[in-house]
This record gives sequence, C-alpha cells and structure tokens, in this order.
Amino acid sequence: MKFRVFSELHYDVQAPSTIILNVHALRTPSQAVLKETLTLEPKLPYEEFESQSGENRFVRLNTGKAKEVVIRYEALVEREHELIEHQKLTPVAVKRMDSSVIPFLFPSRYCQSDKLNRLAWKMFGEIADTYDRVAAVSDWIFDNVEYVRGSTDAQTSAFDTITERSGVCRDFAHLGIALCRALTIPARYFTGYAHQLEPPDFHACFEAYIGERWLLFDATRLAPLNGLVRIATGRDAADAAVATIFGAVTTRKMTVDCQPTEAGFKALRRTDLRDRGFSLDAA
Amino acid sequence: MKFRVFSELHYDVQAPSTIILNVHALRTPSQAVLKETLTLEPKLPYEEFESQSGENRFVRLNTGKAKEVVIRYEALVEREHELIEHQKLTPVAVKRMDSSVIPFLFPSRYCQSDKLNRLAWKMFGEIADTYDRVAAVSDWIFDNVEYVRGSTDAQTSAFDTITERSGVCRDFAHLGIALCRALTIPARYFTGYAHQLEPPDFHACFEAYIGERWLLFDATRLAPLNGLVRIATGRDAADAAVATIFGAVTTRKMTVDCQPTEAGFKALRRTDLRDRGFSLDAA
Amino acid sequence: MKFRVFSELHYDVQAPSTIILNVHALRTPSQAVLKETLTLEPKLPYEEFESQSGENRFVRLNTGKAKEVVIRYEALVEREHELIEHQKLTPVAVKRMDSSVIPFLFPSRYCQSDKLNRLAWKMFGEIADTYDRVAAVSDWIFDNVEYVRGSTDAQTSAFDTITERSGVCRDFAHLGIALCRALTIPARYFTGYAHQLEPPDFHACFEAYIGERWLLFDATRLAPLNGLVRIATGRDAADAAVATIFGAVTTRKMTVDCQPTEAGFKALRRTDLRDRGFSLDAA
Amino acid sequence: MKFRVFSELHYDVQAPSTIILNVHALRTPSQAVLKETLTLEPKLPYEEFESQSGENRFVRLNTGKAKEVVIRYEALVEREHELIEHQKLTPVAVKRMDSSVIPFLFPSRYCQSDKLNRLAWKMFGEIADTYDRVAAVSDWIFDNVEYVRGSTDAQTSAFDTITERSGVCRDFAHLGIALCRALTIPARYFTGYAHQLEPPDFHACFEAYIGERWLLFDATRLAPLNGLVRIATGRDAADAAVATIFGAVTTRKMTVDCQPTEAGFKALRRTDLRDRGFSLDAA
Repeated sequence: MKFRVFSELHYDVQAPSTIILNVHALRTPSQAVLKETLTLEPKLPYEEFESQSGENRFVRLNTGKAKEVVIRYEALVEREHELIEHQKLTPVAVKRMDSSVIPFLFPSRYCQSDKLNRLAWKMFGEIADTYDRVAAVSDWIFDNVEYVRGSTDAQTSAFDTITERSGVCRDFAHLGIALCRALTIPARYFTGYAHQLEPPDFHACFEAYIGERWLLFDATRLAPLNGLVRIATGRDAADAAVATIFGAVTTRKMTVDCQPTEAGFKALRRTDLRDRGFSLDAA
Repeated sequence: MKFRVFSELHYDVQAPSTIILNVHALRTPSQAVLKETLTLEPKLPYEEFESQSGENRFVRLNTGKAKEVVIRYEALVEREHELIEHQKLTPVAVKRMDSSVIPFLFPSRYCQSDKLNRLAWKMFGEIADTYDRVAAVSDWIFDNVEYVRGSTDAQTSAFDTITERSGVCRDFAHLGIALCRALTIPARYFTGYAHQLEPPDFHACFEAYIGERWLLFDATRLAPLNGLVRIATGRDAADAAVATIFGAVTTRKMTVDCQPTEAGFKALRRTDLRDRGFSLDAA
Repeated sequence: MKFRVFSELHYDVQAPSTIILNVHALRTPSQAVLKETLTLEPKLPYEEFESQSGENRFVRLNTGKAKEVVIRYEALVEREHELIEHQKLTPVAVKRMDSSVIPFLFPSRYCQSDKLNRLAWKMFGEIADTYDRVAAVSDWIFDNVEYVRGSTDAQTSAFDTITERSGVCRDFAHLGIALCRALTIPARYFTGYAHQLEPPDFHACFEAYIGERWLLFDATRLAPLNGLVRIATGRDAADAAVATIFGAVTTRKMTVDCQPTEAGFKALRRTDLRDRGFSLDAA
Repeated sequence: MKFRVFSELHYDVQAPSTIILNVHALRTPSQAVLKETLTLEPKLPYEEFESQSGENRFVRLNTGKAKEVVIRYEALVEREHELIEHQKLTPVAVKRMDSSVIPFLFPSRYCQSDKLNRLAWKMFGEIADTYDRVAAVSDWIFDNVEYVRGSTDAQTSAFDTITERSGVCRDFAHLGIALCRALTIPARYFTGYAHQLEPPDFHACFEAYIGERWLLFDATRLAPLNGLVRIATGRDAADAAVATIFGAVTTRKMTVDCQPTEAGFKALRRTDLRDRGFSLDAA
C-alpha cells in the first residue's frame, strides 16, 4: 500500500537555534520511500544523518538569524505489513535473544520498567502466552487510561501514567513499553504518520519483540494499524522526538497528514486481528 | 601503563536464570586487552557479544540448575590516556557535532536532563568556557553531595540526587551527566576497574564531549584518573550495569581488584590536572 | 478488654538532641489508661503535651549530654471496640460531614490522594456502598501489595506504593488512606500497639469515616483487630511517628509488646467481621 | 490600616457538587473584619465553619441543580502589622517550642522537608542567626526560581520546585516552608488578598516561627508586605486552597481585589525592612 505523508511545522525563532528534526519516513526492508521533498523557508542549510542503529533519519538545521522557519516534508511511501498467526509467535528467552534486542529490555527515561516489576507480574504474570500477555497489556491500557489532551507534558513518564491514568498517545506507548520490559519482553517506541487519526497529528505506538518479530500495538486504538508509516524507532520518546530544539524556538502551527494514494484502503483495527500479530516489518 | 584487573562474583541462584554480565575490559584504540580469562564454576556455557555501538562487551550465561555460580574474570590490560591542554578544548556546537554524539544529549533513565534545564543554566550558565563549565559541575558535585554508602539504590536518579545530596559513585556520575546534557554538552556513563579505590569495587565516572574529545571526570575524587580501566560506556547505568539478572539470583560476595603491573605508578588526581583535560581515549 | 502494653527504646546519642516521642496510649472515651509509667535512663527531664486536636500524646525530652538514652513505657489500658452492622453505616455526603472531619479529605505528605483520583474511581468507583468500597480498597491492598520488610523507607509514600507494590504496615496504611480520600471518604492514620503481631513492633492501620463513625481497617491483616491499643491518630505518619528526632540520634534497639491481661482473648480478624464494621471508638 | 477586599468566582457546574470555599478574611487579634457580605447566585444555602485550629473560615455550599454559580465576597478589614527589631528575634529551640507549633515542623503534602535536609543544611546551615537564615532562604528563592505563570499545577510540590526552578506564588511559598522545616524552623502557608499584586489574584506567602513570633516572608516580592489581608493559614495549600471541589465544577472567571480605604498607603517591601522582621500578628 502506498501513502502520501505530509507535515508542515511553523516555528517562531527567538534566538539563533539548532533544530534536530525527526519527520522523515524511515527506510526499512518493508517501507520504501519512493519520493520525498523537504522544503525550508527561508532556504536554510541543513544536514541529514541517521542514528547509529539506523532507526531514525534526523535532519539538523540551524536557524541562523531567521525569525520564522517553515519546514515542509512530503513523501510517497510504499509500505507492507504482515499478519502473523499466533502459533508462530514463539517467545524467545533472554538466553537466546539476538543481542541487538537486549537494550530494549533496559529501563529508559520515560519507561522506568525497573519500578514496575512487581506490578507487571502481579497484573499480567498469569497469562502464559507471550503474545496474549502483551495484548493484555495493550488492552488494559486502552481500558484504564483516559486519552485526555493536555493532561500530560514532555516530562510525563510511565511511572506517572500507571497511577494518574490519563495521557496522550506518547504516554500510552511509554506505559506499554515499560510494562513489557518489566515482563522481560523487549519493547520499543514507534513514531509515525497515521491515516484517519483524528485530529491529524504525529502518532506514537509501541512494538514488542515476540517470536523474533517486532509486533506493533496501539494502546490508544485511535488509528488503523495498517494506516501507519514509520518515522522512527527508539527506546522511548527521548530517542524519537519530532523535534529536539537547542536554543529558543516555539511551535506556532503544525499540520500533519497521511493518505493512501490508492483506493480500497480497508482499516485494520485491533478487533480485526483475530488473534494474529501485526508487524510493520513484513518478512 | 599495564594493569591486571580482576573480579570475582559469587551468586546464589534460586531459580534457573539468565545473567548478562558486564565485567570485561573494553577494547578501544587506546586500551588493549593483552590477555584475559573468564572462569565459571560450574562450567556453564556462555556467550560473549558486543552492544551495537561497541561500547560494552556483554557475557550472557544461563545458570541452568546450578544453585551457586562463581564468575571469575582476570585480564592484563594496556591502557593509555592523554592530557589535553585547555586551549585545544574548543567546544563543538550542536550544529557541528558528530551525529554519533547526539544521543548523549538526550535524557535517559537516571539522567533526566530535561528536568534540570533551568537549574543547570542558573548554576553554571555564566561560566563561558565549556571545559571550565564541566569542571565546575564536577567540583560542585564533589563539594555538595555526600558520599554515603547505602543511601541510594538501583532506582535512584539524578533528579533525586540533586536534592537529596547523597549517594555513591553511580549517583555522582548520573548527576554529572544530567547537568552536562542540560547544558547541551554530550555526556556519558563510564564504568570500570579503579586502582586505589577504597574499599575496592567497580567504579563509575562520567565523560563529557568537549573539543571533539571525551574527557573523563570523577566527581567522587575517590580514585586516580590514570588508575582506571574501562569496562563500558553507556547513556547511564541502565546500559552498563555490572550484571543484569533475569530470574532469581542474589549476590553473595564480590571481589574487585585493579593493580598496575609495572612499578612507578604516580596517581594523577583532579588537582594534578592543572587546567588540562584528561581523556582515556589517547589520540 | 484490658491490655498491658510495653515499649523500650534504646538510643545512641551523637550530639545533644531533642526527641519527640509518641508511644503513650491515647486516652479516648473508649480507651482508658488505668496505669502507666514512663522511665528514662538517665533521668532526663521531659514534658508531656497533646497535639491541638488531642490525637497524640507527645513526650518531649532533651538528651543533654547523655550518650545513651533508654526510654521505657508501660501501661495498663482498658479498651472497648464495637462491631457495627452494615446497614447502619450510611455514608455521609461532604455537604453534611462534620467539619472536624473535612481535613481528612485533603492530601498529605505520604497520602497524595490528589494524584490517585482517576485510578481510585476506575478501580473502586463501581462499588456503590461506601463500606464495601473501603473494604474492597483494604482487600485489594492485601492481595496486591507484598509485605516486604526493608523494601521501603521513611520517605516512601502512597504514590510509590501503588506502583511498586511492596512495603510495610505504614505503607499499607498510607495507600489505604490515599485511595479513600481520592474517593471522597475521610481517612486517617492509626498507630498503636498490636497483640500477636509477629515479629512484635508498633503497628499502623487506617481508619475511614463511614456512617459518622471511624472504622478501622488493617490492610496487612497481620494482627487481630481487637488486639490493638491506640497510640495516635493523624493525617499520616508525619503526624504520628513513634519518634521525631531533632539532632543526631540513632536507634540501637527496640522492644514492643502488647498482651491482654485477662484470659479468653479471641482474635477477631477481617474474615470474622462478616459484613460488620469494626470501630475502636465504641459508641 | 483598613482594606476593602473583594473576590468574585464564576463556576460552571456539570453535576451537583459540593464546594468548600476559603475566601473569607480571617479574624485574628490583629485583623478585624468590620463588615462582610457573601452573595451567592443563585441563592444557594451554605454553611460557614472554622477549621479545628481556627486558621480557616470555610464556606461549604451545595450547587444542587444550578448550572452556574457566582460567589461574591466583599469585606472591610482592619489590619495591623508589626515590625520587630532583629535583636528581639531570639530563636526558640525545639525543646522549648510551644506545642501548637510542633506540627509545623513536620513534612506535608507539598512541603517534603524530610527530603530536603542535607540540601537545606548545606545551603543555609552556616548562617548562624535564625532570622538571617530564613531571610536567606526567601532571598535565594527569589533569586533562583523564576516566576512563570502556567509552569506548574496543583500537584507541584517543593521537591519539584527546588530542581525545576520555576513556579507561581504557591510554589515559592511551599519551597520556603519546606526549607525552613528542614532547618528545624516551624513554617506555615499563608494565603490572602494582596494590594498592588499584578495581575490581581489571591496571593500565597510563608510564615516562619522565630522568637515566638510568626514572621511573614514573600519570596516572590510581588506585593507589599503591608498590603496583605489574611484568608487562611495552614500546613500548605492542601489546607488552604481557595476552593476544594467535590463533584464536577470548572472555574470560568475569577476577579480579586484588595484596596486600602484610606489615603496614604506606603508600600513596605523586603528592601524596606532593614533587618527587621515583619509580622501580621501585631503583639
């Protein structure tokens, strides 16, 4: 399926600043960027670079003396996904886990899994099957955390959300990650464009490593799983913020869009999975 | 200078567990491991692997049915360091920073730099020179945080330590890292063997990126800078714990040692630097 | 029922200090102190005073130059309790609540009910009856928080315990109080002597205000409800610590005891209540 | 000096709710309420009551079916204050402190003095004189915490503010209280009307107990000390919120005013005190 993704960010610049942007569609074996353009107003010089582990495509730009900066990104992306039958999702013990996956077991800034151990095992420890366990985590978050715009901020972490029970997509994802890690299931942060997300915005989900596959879970259930285009993967939002700003810049406006370019998009949601895992990394 | 490093860990195992160890001396351009042996009692199978970014050498072992495990690591390491004149430590703006360094600006589990911004700039913002600024951070921690064994635990973070003002080497390092990152200076966690550390133990310090070099700072001042042998580098202790345990294992005893194998070791301490930076990565 | 209560505290004094002790059995309409002695070694001057609201009997003493202080308290206490039929426990709306009760709705140091609102209503909001609701809170804590000696310290609060799921009697009580207040049920901290508590120690429980009565709940279930002798009541442990120390004093040893002086004590536990409320304030 | 104080609160009511208001001028030996009116639209029944320790005058009202409630309070208040010479401010040791003052040494919801001990002594411990010490606390907050509207919320506490270094009057007061208590100086929360506060609002300050007097400190320096009219005193904002709401009510608008009714008001500020203490409780 092909998607046209688009984002436009208007910044007011109070002092010369450096912005590290993270809005490019990622290139992966199952996600091809067919065409893309990045436009800056004014025409500032910028540099693209990838994170060491290849899970982000950053753009670094320097505002210089500009008082306003408009960043416009547009891409045509072809993306596959895969539905995986439950019986193939054999859990991988830590002793056999691929070493690249191990760091996703460690706690991170917004996912203090080390503080959620007892709770996680108490709540989900009796579910024997790993996939069922993660699905239960995601469903529990959906059922018990309220999606409340503005109830949290950039400092809110899973340790807050498990108790305060409110947040936005980023908080839902962080809590899912923290609970998985506490259960010794590697988990990572996903950020991307999302078709049919209302109101349109960047979206965040989490991925859990089960049966040697990264499966995607959206505890908010706000967007169809097959309408997502990956921007970045990271330990948590600290690795994958839309923009990290060094200086004095404020966001004035933001527009985000994600549309299939072909007819016949059929939304695939949690309830359509019928016991199958969903992965954005098609085999 | 050559060092013989040694560590011995005695574990009691309550249930079959996986242990990820992080006690091997790292191999870097300025640190050569001339000889090393790892002995396990009983003779359990194990596997070595490196973290993706090559900054840890992990050993993963599975206890199987063993009730006790003794792990003994011994190595002969040759290590150089470099003293760098202050005038060469030209700061690097974010806009020119090597992209591999960027993640060390982000907040992490134990170094919530995002919450220390105002404080850091208020306290150290007026110091113009970057090296002086980091040195002031390290000195301030030494002067204002008490080294109190047992006052903190594995969940203690920089946000706690800045207020509670007590901790151990790990806490001193985390606070140094968090303050540097809040000041837009990349900083990372160092863990290693330390000569003359009393009582002998693994040690933790922090490194700050100044003038395209990683400079080492020991806010505890408990060990000579030139008596350190690097085990690992990471965002914080979550990346570089001596042992991460999946299962039910308790530490019964731990022995750590680090001795120069040649005569003539002259301890180099903070006060001996006389305005020069100290790096474990000799150019 | 009459009880002989006893406590002995050995302190090492590093510098002249003031100690505010809170070990005396409280005098209430349903708890009479028939006889009591307080012995200090050495014979330091001390002063008794009550808190403004009459819910603590403090002893203030000054160590002077003593290097060791032994405090021995012994009392014979006659205490009644009452079992109240469920149907009499009509809830009192805030609009009709006695004004003396209102402050027990407010958050306090260790009971941050303001942060537990959503969680409390999500978890217990569907239980219509107030007594059943508080019983469910207490039972949930018993079922989901592990009693682990040494897992917490004097700074641990309900906000920690709800997630970390471990603690001691004080933490169980704080969590019960915080959840009740979040549900608009006044709740307060109880500390006292406890018969059959193993190992013997001071005990902490919580009381909730239902049907114009303060009902006692022990989420730890470690002591019979009818084996308790009240020392103090407060918003939380900040009001009712066994000892608050101003200076440099360390506890060397502590002995606590509580025995009925008459034969025929029949332990009354949670499961014996059969839907009745238990109050230490007999009508 | 006489002041006319005024406040008007517009509430939107989503469901029948109980509101506990705290806007009445307190009656104290040095503050007389000469005339006052409370108007409710619609004419709802309400009840006045005082907190047990007489430091708040609460109004409890029930919205019933009203969809909007307007509360208007107006009073003519005569108030004295006293400037006390420094040499009279002899500190009172805990061993001699009036027992009513002791609870103001304990930590509370927003003033976790127990976590600020080392920091407080490290920062202010060398200042020998108690009044100078509290003045230094207040001045340090003024110099190091930024007044930023909207940077904090109702859950922000002194433990946050000491690190995050931003807040509003309530946060400044909480931090002052927490630091004083950590230094074994009783401290309490003051809320009141404030002349010349810009923009007009309710104000919060803190009082420290020195020389058997409660002295007032305004770490924000936003209002003249002699332009304040006391509404309430408490351990912290949990005791003295302008309104505590049980139900579903949102504030639509708030107007606050405080004007001297006589000519010749001469603002008295921190810098005018010249080493004298300021007390709202005239002897």
